[in-house]
Amino acid sequence: MTTPSLRPHQLQILDSWTRTKRPFEPLTPGHVGIYVCGPTVYSDTHLGHAKSYISFDVVVRYFRWLGYRVRYVQNITDVGHLTDNADEGEDKLLKRARLDRVHPMELAETYTRLYFRDMDALGVTRPDISPRATQHVPEQLAIIRQLIQKGHAYEVGGSVYFSVKSWSEYGKLSGRDIEESEEGTRVSVRSDKRDPRDFALWKAAEGGHILRWDTEWGPGFPGWHIECSAMSQKYLGDTFDIHGGGLDNQFPHHECEIAQSHAAGVPFARFWMHNNLITVDGQKMSKSLGNFTSVAKALEKHAPETVRFWVLSTHYRSPANYADDALTAAKGGLDRLLNCYREVHRKAGSEAPGALPDFAVRAERAFVASMDDDFNTPLALGALFDLVRETNAALAGGQLAPPAAAAVTQLMASLGGDVLGVLGPPGVAETSGSVGPLVELLIDLRKELKSRKAFDLSDRVRDGLLAQGIELKDGKEGTVWTKKN
Amino acid sequence: MTTPSLRPHQLQILDSWTRTKRPFEPLTPGHVGIYVCGPTVYSDTHLGHAKSYISFDVVVRYFRWLGYRVRYVQNITDVGHLTDNADEGEDKLLKRARLDRVHPMELAETYTRLYFRDMDALGVTRPDISPRATQHVPEQLAIIRQLIQKGHAYEVGGSVYFSVKSWSEYGKLSGRDIEESEEGTRVSVRSDKRDPRDFALWKAAEGGHILRWDTEWGPGFPGWHIECSAMSQKYLGDTFDIHGGGLDNQFPHHECEIAQSHAAGVPFARFWMHNNLITVDGQKMSKSLGNFTSVAKALEKHAPETVRFWVLSTHYRSPANYADDALTAAKGGLDRLLNCYREVHRKAGSEAPGALPDFAVRAERAFVASMDDDFNTPLALGALFDLVRETNAALAGGQLAPPAAAAVTQLMASLGGDVLGVLGPPGVAETSGSVGPLVELLIDLRKELKSRKAFDLSDRVRDGLLAQGIELKDGKEGTVWTKKN
Repeated sequence: MTTPSLRPHQLQILDSWTRTKRPFEPLTPGHVGIYVCGPTVYSDTHLGHAKSYISFDVVVRYFRWLGYRVRYVQNITDVGHLTDNADEGEDKLLKRARLDRVHPMELAETYTRLYFRDMDALGVTRPDISPRATQHVPEQLAIIRQLIQKGHAYEVGGSVYFSVKSWSEYGKLSGRDIEESEEGTRVSVRSDKRDPRDFALWKAAEGGHILRWDTEWGPGFPGWHIECSAMSQKYLGDTFDIHGGGLDNQFPHHECEIAQSHAAGVPFARFWMHNNLITVDGQKMSKSLGNFTSVAKALEKHAPETVRFWVLSTHYRSPANYADDALTAAKGGLDRLLNCYREVHRKAGSEAPGALPDFAVRAERAFVASMDDDFNTPLALGALFDLVRETNAALAGGQLAPPAAAAVTQLMASLGGDVLGVLGPPGVAETSGSVGPLVELLIDLRKELKSRKAFDLSDRVRDGLLAQGIELKDGKEGTVWTKKN
Repeated sequence: MTTPSLRPHQLQILDSWTRTKRPFEPLTPGHVGIYVCGPTVYSDTHLGHAKSYISFDVVVRYFRWLGYRVRYVQNITDVGHLTDNADEGEDKLLKRARLDRVHPMELAETYTRLYFRDMDALGVTRPDISPRATQHVPEQLAIIRQLIQKGHAYEVGGSVYFSVKSWSEYGKLSGRDIEESEEGTRVSVRSDKRDPRDFALWKAAEGGHILRWDTEWGPGFPGWHIECSAMSQKYLGDTFDIHGGGLDNQFPHHECEIAQSHAAGVPFARFWMHNNLITVDGQKMSKSLGNFTSVAKALEKHAPETVRFWVLSTHYRSPANYADDALTAAKGGLDRLLNCYREVHRKAGSEAPGALPDFAVRAERAFVASMDDDFNTPLALGALFDLVRETNAALAGGQLAPPAAAAVTQLMASLGGDVLGVLGPPGVAETSGSVGPLVELLIDLRKELKSRKAFDLSDRVRDGLLAQGIELKDGKEGTVWTKKN
């Protein structure tokens, strides 16, 4: 086993389980195992997913930037919610797959594909393993059998429930008093449970369930919580570094995961991280409130980098408010960053990077300190903007030699690109897509036309480009162009 | 249940099982269930995959074009070949997932992603369900237990084998005499088999196997053949319309699938279709011969549509020879098709489609008749070229009014685009990518420059575009442009 060498850092993570900010020490030196609750694939990806998966994307990117080897596991929930809408009169057992209606797995495939399409568009790095719940039914059954054997679970009518009373720490993660919560759960009482707070590990398959597996308790399908216990353990081990997910998963999902895994004798995750949610005018974004925005819709209005910038300008543990002015502000910030990046790259020319100027060394240090403080991305962006301000000043004052400019370019690509994912490789902004060479050709022509005083044609070039969202700006060092998102 | 209305057709398919060309009648009117053997995800996608999956893509597209609702299932083999390369001295049981080496499932994820990337690039429609072998271990075990119970399989030392002698039809699909084949298989004799020709349904997990499942026979993993029996049955039913795959899968893979499923009492597929392979200078393309080309490499040299055209210019049951002149010929054919498509679209302008000219009605009929004859795509391309020839003649002779031109455009988009996937929507060729409007702007400028006799600048436009692979051609009706692939 080789231990990778790491950049200096002193990472602290706020652990939701102990409610303390603790220094991060990995189980295996130089390696990080992280599990994040993935989507249930039955509808479009929404901005809440973007907040969660961009946040954890940056966590993973930062670990990798520090030099850790990361195994990032994020599940796909493709079972449980999938019931069949057959007419009352039909054979509900559906022993034979029917071609004249959509199979639940077709829906799961479609929405899994759309999920990855949206995440790819947002620049979210793919997880190393994306296990499906239906892919791990034997592993889930093995834990359930263990829990029955240890007296933490019981079977009733083909379903298996976890006995909440058998596990004294139930409620610790979410800070709920389970005696008090008894009253609240009465509404969803199922007559076969011994205690209304008990939760399902395995559900007897009723009529319309197509996705079903045979067991000693009859045909059924896994409860939602058990899949994450089974899959994290399989791919990361009995104990692993970090378990993440949205705050809305803290209760009941993660509370149940912890109860199941601990009760089965598994030490489980060492750090629990929870990202906060998206709000709209201070209210939670949800389908029922009608203030719901899908990632695809948001990307019609905003560039992916703008959405990332907006998400990262709030700490992952704080809610992010989705509003036009917030996105406009994000776009403004991103443009400021991009312009500086472009200018300093131009100044660098083809010089090899030299030593970093002092102000850039300070900015990098501040960036790392911010990220080390529980991945504080708003502060890290602040450090980047200090870098932008000082770089602009140095450029304006003619104090930045090309080798230093190349070093600053590299630093920006590293912090803003590799870690935060809001900047592309240097130079790409100038030639984005395949239009770059044609724009350059048009800029050359325009210059020639102006020198021949054919101003009607040079204006036609400028206006024609503007109609395509490409703006020309004439400066001392020639004409530069920007493409609107 | 609603039965979709279909276009007139008389489809015949050559069934490899009965070795006859038979009329296709679906099990459920208006619906087709089709299963095609998918890739084993442990290396790059190669041109052999392209031949198979483009061929079946066109089969599925043709069914959909006729009006059928298709459920297309194609598996992902993500288990079996995945052994661990741990050092001899290490604990080979690997009870705990190790973070300091790559997990087999990470490799499977990576190559699954690359496979779909390559197929997407080739314009291959995604299957409706892409089941993973590891996702269906309980279903595979259920069939294995049934086979043991019926006396068609036996367990030895933790592995389960299918008894070939117990199934008299073994060898029928591939036309092998199993008594004769006994000798040949001696080389791979495993001492625990009762008969060297018996094949594994379940394999005892030896030291290095990380992907393993507990069973009554001890820990193990499924044999390759059983997954396709389990997954086709699960998603398409005990009997379904079509099972497809490469000719190299006919023996042993499909022979074993049929034996397993039939012996378990399942009627299985009604038609078996086998595509032939890729050759290089008449030899089979294979890694060991060093004449292997990955899809990604081929797409560096050729446009996806050219690769599709090349594959489809040979019948799926014939071998396709990969050679520069064959690809050049395909490119030439495609260009001829594209030029006519572009011209007839231009002639159509914004007119609504009128009646199809007689020659186009005849061409469509010939196209359908060719596809009806066991998906004879070379003949169908021939019908398209008859259409091209007559359309060009009608255009040259001024005999094609805009409404008729619009109808022909629509027909070409339908046959060459929807069915064969070698043409995009009309008009896209003119504005491919985002360069279209800029090219138009440059063409306008060039015209103006020529009229002002600024020929140096008008030439600069032409040469600048040519440097980007965009060629201008001046004609009576203005300047048209083509982009090299």
